[in-house]
Amino acid sequence: MSWPAGRGGVGIAGVGTALPGDPVDNAALSRRLGIAPEWVEAFIGTRTRHFAVDLEGGAVRWALEDLCADAADRALADAGADPDDVAFIVVATATPDALMPTTAALVADRLGIDQVPVYQLQSGCSGSVQALALAGALLAGGSREKRGQKPVGLVVGGDVCSKHLDLRQDFRELPATQLVNYVLFGDGAGAVALTRAPEAARARLVRAEHWLSGLGRAPGQRVEWFGQADRHSDRPAVVEDYKSVESLVPVMAREVLDWLLDALDWPAASLGHVLPPQLSGRMTERITRGLRQGLEWEEVSCVAETGNNGNALVFHQLERLLPRLAAGDRAVGIAIESSKWIKAGFAVEATG
Amino acid sequence: MSWPAGRGGVGIAGVGTALPGDPVDNAALSRRLGIAPEWVEAFIGTRTRHFAVDLEGGAVRWALEDLCADAADRALADAGADPDDVAFIVVATATPDALMPTTAALVADRLGIDQVPVYQLQSGCSGSVQALALAGALLAGGSREKRGQKPVGLVVGGDVCSKHLDLRQDFRELPATQLVNYVLFGDGAGAVALTRAPEAARARLVRAEHWLSGLGRAPGQRVEWFGQADRHSDRPAVVEDYKSVESLVPVMAREVLDWLLDALDWPAASLGHVLPPQLSGRMTERITRGLRQGLEWEEVSCVAETGNNGNALVFHQLERLLPRLAAGDRAVGIAIESSKWIKAGFAVEATG
Repeated sequence: MSWPAGRGGVGIAGVGTALPGDPVDNAALSRRLGIAPEWVEAFIGTRTRHFAVDLEGGAVRWALEDLCADAADRALADAGADPDDVAFIVVATATPDALMPTTAALVADRLGIDQVPVYQLQSGCSGSVQALALAGALLAGGSREKRGQKPVGLVVGGDVCSKHLDLRQDFRELPATQLVNYVLFGDGAGAVALTRAPEAARARLVRAEHWLSGLGRAPGQRVEWFGQADRHSDRPAVVEDYKSVESLVPVMAREVLDWLLDALDWPAASLGHVLPPQLSGRMTERITRGLRQGLEWEEVSCVAETGNNGNALVFHQLERLLPRLAAGDRAVGIAIESSKWIKAGFAVEATG
Repeated sequence: MSWPAGRGGVGIAGVGTALPGDPVDNAALSRRLGIAPEWVEAFIGTRTRHFAVDLEGGAVRWALEDLCADAADRALADAGADPDDVAFIVVATATPDALMPTTAALVADRLGIDQVPVYQLQSGCSGSVQALALAGALLAGGSREKRGQKPVGLVVGGDVCSKHLDLRQDFRELPATQLVNYVLFGDGAGAVALTRAPEAARARLVRAEHWLSGLGRAPGQRVEWFGQADRHSDRPAVVEDYKSVESLVPVMAREVLDWLLDALDWPAASLGHVLPPQLSGRMTERITRGLRQGLEWEEVSCVAETGNNGNALVFHQLERLLPRLAAGDRAVGIAIESSKWIKAGFAVEATG
């Protein structure tokens, strides 16, 4: 979207995140799965993650709704805003609690928000950027708002990836290609409160863009949902092509960074921070090396602590970024969605 | 969204729809379910519907992707536009083929569209209006487009409700509250091509609005998706509260109509057509009576022939509306989503 380009962008007035329970480290996870913790360290490079389910008994302890409502609540508090200020809500997730009602509607309910438009984007990791782009367009285009209201666009992203994990099976039987899903992913949510007044906000969201880039490419991931008719079929619920993810994501991440710097006319050397894609600790290291090209910017990552929690990642990175920004500092964030290949990126500039 | 209000709206340049296979009439459906066709006539009032699955064997013959791609293709052809003109795609559905990749990405692939933003809204019946509102904001706010391109926003809605039907069971065992799902719903898709030039289009989309209206209200519908961890549970896949649907939808439909007429300063008598919510033939008759209040407008409905095919309905109604419009004619469309209660409506004015 070109929305904020000529208008100084929209304001990131507040950010909030939520993670379920205590971090689960590689020792605890490896014990549960009957694998070597060194394998996780070496190949995945993720040290901890959080699960919405109890790893031992498999009981669901947090719904996506719980995590999203907590994150949204914190983002509003951080912005000094009330639920009454919210002019619209956009939620991005690949793993809603149910197909209907949407998590977006339930989060609104939890916050006491009503009579506003809510949108729920079905999306993989790039969904948080799609949600930022959409919210920017809604704020720029003129959202329906109460007279005198300073409208807040509430953008929420989250995933409960552990919904896909079957904890009742014998993990010794599981091939490494499937076992990796148990150590790569985590659960969580995040949110930002956006406003039309960047100068009064913590930072300025200058631009958010995304490109479907799937033409002629096989999907890198397929995640099924099962309805009444086919829930007892033996089709696998999740199929991943990690080889194509490994080869394509670094290339696409580079394309996004170059495109944004060019479109914004930002010299590469003016960049203070980069928020790279967060596939796993190890993959993020590789991608970051490919992006750096001798430049001095600081990497802002969270995946080694949070695990890959999908649509939550960008908000966890933003939460780490904001306190590090000095006036005029520039940052670029990048997310790549591998199911049918979406490139996504955004640019942030410190106000003040 | 107030986007098009001051700017003359966006253009509906083309419309297209798709229905799977031949219509299934009440005689054929009743035979298959072992119920009386008179019951369907009397209580549901829907004469035919279309199914993406084979009613006898249960084989899936059309994916949502197939239906959406067909409808999108026809909308572009109707608009005299090429896939290359498409600046973004918005798909609305409650029943995607998979959680990932999204149907939006797969439809783009089928049409040869790439390097544009795609959005997929997870939504019930109001999703098509949410998609129109979003597309209007994107067109108004300035979508990213090629130099010299006359950007087309491709808006698609569709549902394969039969994904929820288990055709292998003994229907004589099924209570009427569940049997109703087998006679109420249908499958289908629809699409419109929107442009920034209403004067050159078939009609003008003047406004599209939606309001979450769920605060303090129990959900009217819950649709589960089952992942690996819980697919073999015995939780029901779909739960409906038809009593609250019957009592709330007519009231909400009235509120939407009144709000739009007031906001647009359109005298009720100036309205030529109304596109009422399409729950079933019988419910739509009731809702229409509540909306009419002695006014002369013409009802534009499709549900008695298409069945309730969710996010496809609005586009099937638009396809019936457009040929009936004379210059200056005004129409209002209304959709109500019952899972957590979303009111939605849009206003169309004939160009020329």
